[in-house]
Formats: sequence, structure tokens, C-alpha cells
Amino acid sequence: MNATRSRPPTMGDIAARAAVSTATVSYVLNDTPGNRIPEETRRRVLAAAEDLGYVPHTSARSLRTGRSDLVLFAMPATTLGPLASRFFTGLAEELRALGYTLILHGDPEQRGAKAARAWAGLRPAAVIAEGRRLTPSAVSLLTGAGAVPLALGHAPRKGVPALVLDHFGMGETGGRHLVEQGCTDIAALVPRAPVVKEMGEERLAGLAKAAAGVRVRRTDMDETPEDAARVVAEWAEQGMPDGVYGYNDEFAGLLLGALADAGVDVPGRVRLVGTDDLPLCEMLRPRLTSVGLRPVLSVGEVAAHIAALVSGEADPAESIRAWEPELRRRGSA
Amino acid sequence: MNATRSRPPTMGDIAARAAVSTATVSYVLNDTPGNRIPEETRRRVLAAAEDLGYVPHTSARSLRTGRSDLVLFAMPATTLGPLASRFFTGLAEELRALGYTLILHGDPEQRGAKAARAWAGLRPAAVIAEGRRLTPSAVSLLTGAGAVPLALGHAPRKGVPALVLDHFGMGETGGRHLVEQGCTDIAALVPRAPVVKEMGEERLAGLAKAAAGVRVRRTDMDETPEDAARVVAEWAEQGMPDGVYGYNDEFAGLLLGALADAGVDVPGRVRLVGTDDLPLCEMLRPRLTSVGLRPVLSVGEVAAHIAALVSGEADPAESIRAWEPELRRRGSA
Repeated sequence: MNATRSRPPTMGDIAARAAVSTATVSYVLNDTPGNRIPEETRRRVLAAAEDLGYVPHTSARSLRTGRSDLVLFAMPATTLGPLASRFFTGLAEELRALGYTLILHGDPEQRGAKAARAWAGLRPAAVIAEGRRLTPSAVSLLTGAGAVPLALGHAPRKGVPALVLDHFGMGETGGRHLVEQGCTDIAALVPRAPVVKEMGEERLAGLAKAAAGVRVRRTDMDETPEDAARVVAEWAEQGMPDGVYGYNDEFAGLLLGALADAGVDVPGRVRLVGTDDLPLCEMLRPRLTSVGLRPVLSVGEVAAHIAALVSGEADPAESIRAWEPELRRRGSA
Repeated sequence: MNATRSRPPTMGDIAARAAVSTATVSYVLNDTPGNRIPEETRRRVLAAAEDLGYVPHTSARSLRTGRSDLVLFAMPATTLGPLASRFFTGLAEELRALGYTLILHGDPEQRGAKAARAWAGLRPAAVIAEGRRLTPSAVSLLTGAGAVPLALGHAPRKGVPALVLDHFGMGETGGRHLVEQGCTDIAALVPRAPVVKEMGEERLAGLAKAAAGVRVRRTDMDETPEDAARVVAEWAEQGMPDGVYGYNDEFAGLLLGALADAGVDVPGRVRLVGTDDLPLCEMLRPRLTSVGLRPVLSVGEVAAHIAALVSGEADPAESIRAWEPELRRRGSA
């Protein structure tokens, strides 16, 4: 058995079944304005389409109208994380209500024209990608292919609409809290992995601004329990910081475990702040204080803004600010 | 400024620039076998395509060949989790090497024909979806549209190729370990949320088989710290189990926190096993013993099997068994 080789039904098949011309089928299925198909014929065509299991081809629509209803979210699935995946799911729902289909294009490492060519091959209406991947050549390739680029990240680039994720502000919020708690020697964990390192450096820059009056040390770390143990052992020799900004909750969680193993009291000896406000914060003891994002716009408003960019009704120079950093205080700091 | 309204370059534009017919452009760009285009003309066409930034339209290819190079992974991004997202990213890479583009279609709740119609609209070559969403009407709609359905889950269904995720075996592995550790009163956490509840029940069935000789209680729970505290409070009244199977690591993590707050020693008084072997296991104290999945096939082998299903070279009756459940022993049990 191999049912998969069967040919999908075409408008021609529907025409044969309903005993009308293919043009009539096209008029009916596309609901072309101004056509004068008798109601009885219209019903016969729709019944034949239903009987044959005809599915309109999203891409054929895109060939006809010059634009598809696809919105591409270009992000490696592995760096999606709980926050981004919740946003993705909500956005998919809201965009569907507006007639768009959101899909995740999970190509891992490409950036620039090479990545943009792969995205543009699907003829999307819009492409949401991290700002660093939207190089000038990627942007011109996408706009040339009729797709609106939308840069996800901190720094808006001229002429490219941005969906702002304020990494700088998140680091700043965490740093401010540690300083307010009396910390005078703050270590900031920065991930070593290439994809997330730049995010870590933006968060570090925000922290450094908020903690300008005290000592700030940069501590590069891999996301492994072994490297967390190494970091704590080095601090034990060189002097323990009194505040740690954990880049994200996973780094903070690994460090909290390593501090517990070394007998260092949190928050008594070291205060610890994570970022992202993941469910994880409620599993750890002490519970992890973290910097979360408070929605400023609803997901529906973000979807409407994206649709307006596609239709040319929104100003591409205007950034979308959907979230504000906000401290979620728990036991660790 | 609104660069997004510009029309993408067409084969007609390339023909005009290269001073050849559109048919010649089509022959060259599609590398149609048997054409006799002179080498000099071929080069001129390719140069013109390059100059204009022409991007071949994935969907146009699908209209011509009747099949696109898209493989759809239909799963809500929020239920993707670290395991599935790592698999997704690896599979995207391996499928790309075989000429396919893997995209995530993150529609959240639909199943059956309604969901299948949305997937089929993209004319994918294959659709990977949880088995429960691939109802008979969804399967016939997909195969009718030329897409190979691939069911993700425990129970292979007749005629539908399956990518087996052995939830039953995972529960069985966790249960066997608890029994071996001497537990005689095992509570199994089952999530209440509709999407994951069925997975939880498959894992519970596996656990019940392995723990047939001892008491097994089903404990329904929401994934919140409040509900974990309620569960522990009820156990404190009704009698504490000596073993807990945590459905997944997040449920086990929340429960571990609630047990710590109630002063219940793990593993001294209660042994606790999670599932999925998430990085989280290394952050908790005690570290969480968990059931992980050992790869039996490489991601490349899975990709090659999917490609063979699409080309009709693989037997659809044969399931793909890519993973085996495996206990990862740590401090909690």
C-alpha cells in the first residue's frame, strides 16, 4: 500500500464532477467579485469540492496574489525557550484570526543573504528574525522578495521594523536590585555559546550601567553543572562575590546548585538573580528571584501591528515595544 | 519609505534582461533534462538571475512537481520542550541536507480534518504530528493532498507510519526503578491539562505494569507550585507514599520543592523519579533521578527514513523506533 503517491484533486477534477468549466470552479472557489454564477451552480461546485476533499493551495494563492499568508518566525527551536515559545503559540493564534499562518523556520546558524534566500523561498509575507541575522543584504533580499523583515532584539536598525526585546533593560533591572540590596561586588555570568553570547553581553552592559558605582566582574560560563562548579571553586579562591547576576534562570539554577554543594548560603552570603522568570524559579530552594517581562502590548496588538506592516499601513520606522523588564522577587535576593 | 511593496523579480524579468525567451529561462533555472541551451546563453541567464536577486519559489516548484520540499512538524511550540526542540533542530539540519525544509506549524489545539486542512494548504511532502491528532479523516485528507502523515507517539496505527515515542516504556522504566528501590506505595503524578493528560496516562499505564505487585495511586496535579503544595498536604494527612513518579521533570521539580517546604526528606522518606532528563535535574538538590531517552537511530537515519517514506521507497507499515527509555540515576531515588 502506498496511498501517498495519489494526485491531489484539482479544480479540473471538480469541474468534471460538477459538469461546469474550470473557470466557473475558479470563480466560485475564489469568490471572485462581480461573477454571476447562478446559486444552484455555485452549490454544485462547492459540493463537488467537498466530495473530492479539495484543499485550496496556500502557495497557489500566493502565486496569484503575489503574496502568501505565511509569517516566518526564524529562530532555532533549541534557543526558543519557554518565554518565546509561549509568545510564538499566542502569536500563531492571533495571526490566524487575521488570515495569516505563522510557522517556525528552525534553521540553526545561518545569517545574512544565505539565510534570507532560504526564508524568501517560501514567499512569506513577513519574516521575524533576530536582529543580528538581518544583515543589510538579508534585508534587501527579503524586501525584494516582497517580505517584510522584522528584527527581534534590543537595538532597532534604521529602516528595519523592530520587535524590541530589551536585553539591556533586563540586565539593568537585575543590577539595580542587587545594588539596592547592598551588593558591592557583583559577578555577571555570560554564556560562552555563540548564539546566546551576544544576548548575554547586552544583558551585562545593562547590568554594568546599573551597577556603575560598585565592582562588576564578568564570568564566562558554559551551561553545564561542571562549569558551574569550576566557577564557584575559583570564586572560593579569589574571593566570593556578594551578588551574582545569572544571565538567565538556567545559569542561575546551575550556579545555585554549585553554591549549595560548596556550602555557600544564598541569600545570606551571596544574593542571586536570574532572568526570564521561568517556572524553574518556583522549583529551586531558595526560590529564584528573576527578571521577567511584563506585557505592555497584548499579543493581539503585536499581531495587528505585523499585519499593518505587511499591508503597508504601519510606519516601518516605528518599533514595536511589547514588553517591559520587571523584577519578580523571591527568596534568592 | 515602504520598500516592502516592491514586486519580486520574475522569470520574465530575467528573460528581458538576458534577451532570451521566458521558456529558455525556465529551462535553465529548472535544469530541465534534455534541453539544448548553449552554454553561453545558460551563463547569461544565470548572471541575469543573480543580478536581479531572483529567488526560486518553493511553492512554484510544488505546483510544477505536484509536491513541495516542505516537511511540517505540527506541534504547539509551548509543548515542544527541550528534548523535542533539540530533535527538531537536528532533524531540520539533516532534512536540509536531503533537500527538504522542516518547519514548525504551531497551531495549538486543532485535530482531525480541520487541522489537516490547514497543514495540507501548505502542500507539504510530509506532516509529523502527535498520533491523537491524526484521526482517520485527517489521514485521508493528508494522503489525498499528497502528504505523508507520520504519527508521533506510542501506539502505531494501522497504515499510518509512526515515529514511536514510547511513553508507556518511560513510565515502565521509572516504575521498575522505584520497585527495585523497595518502594511499596507509589504515587504517580498525572497532569490535568488536556494536551498532556493523555501522555501522562500512557506513562501511568507503563508504571502500573512495572509496579503490579505494589500499591499505585494516581494523583492528578496542575503544573503550579500551589497545586504541588496541596498534593503534599493531602499526602501528609492520608499517608505519605514512599515513591513518587513525577510524570515529567517539571512536575517532579515542583513536588520536590513542596516536599522540602514540608520537611519531608528525599530520598530518605520519599524516593522521586522524573521523566525527560532535562538540564533541570542537575540544578535541583538532591539532583533528580529521571527517565531519559537513549538514541537508537541517529537523527540522520530518521531524516533518511522520512525521505524514503516521501519517495515511496519505505514501507509505511514499518514504525521508526529512534529512542529507548533509559534511567539516569541521581540523588533523588
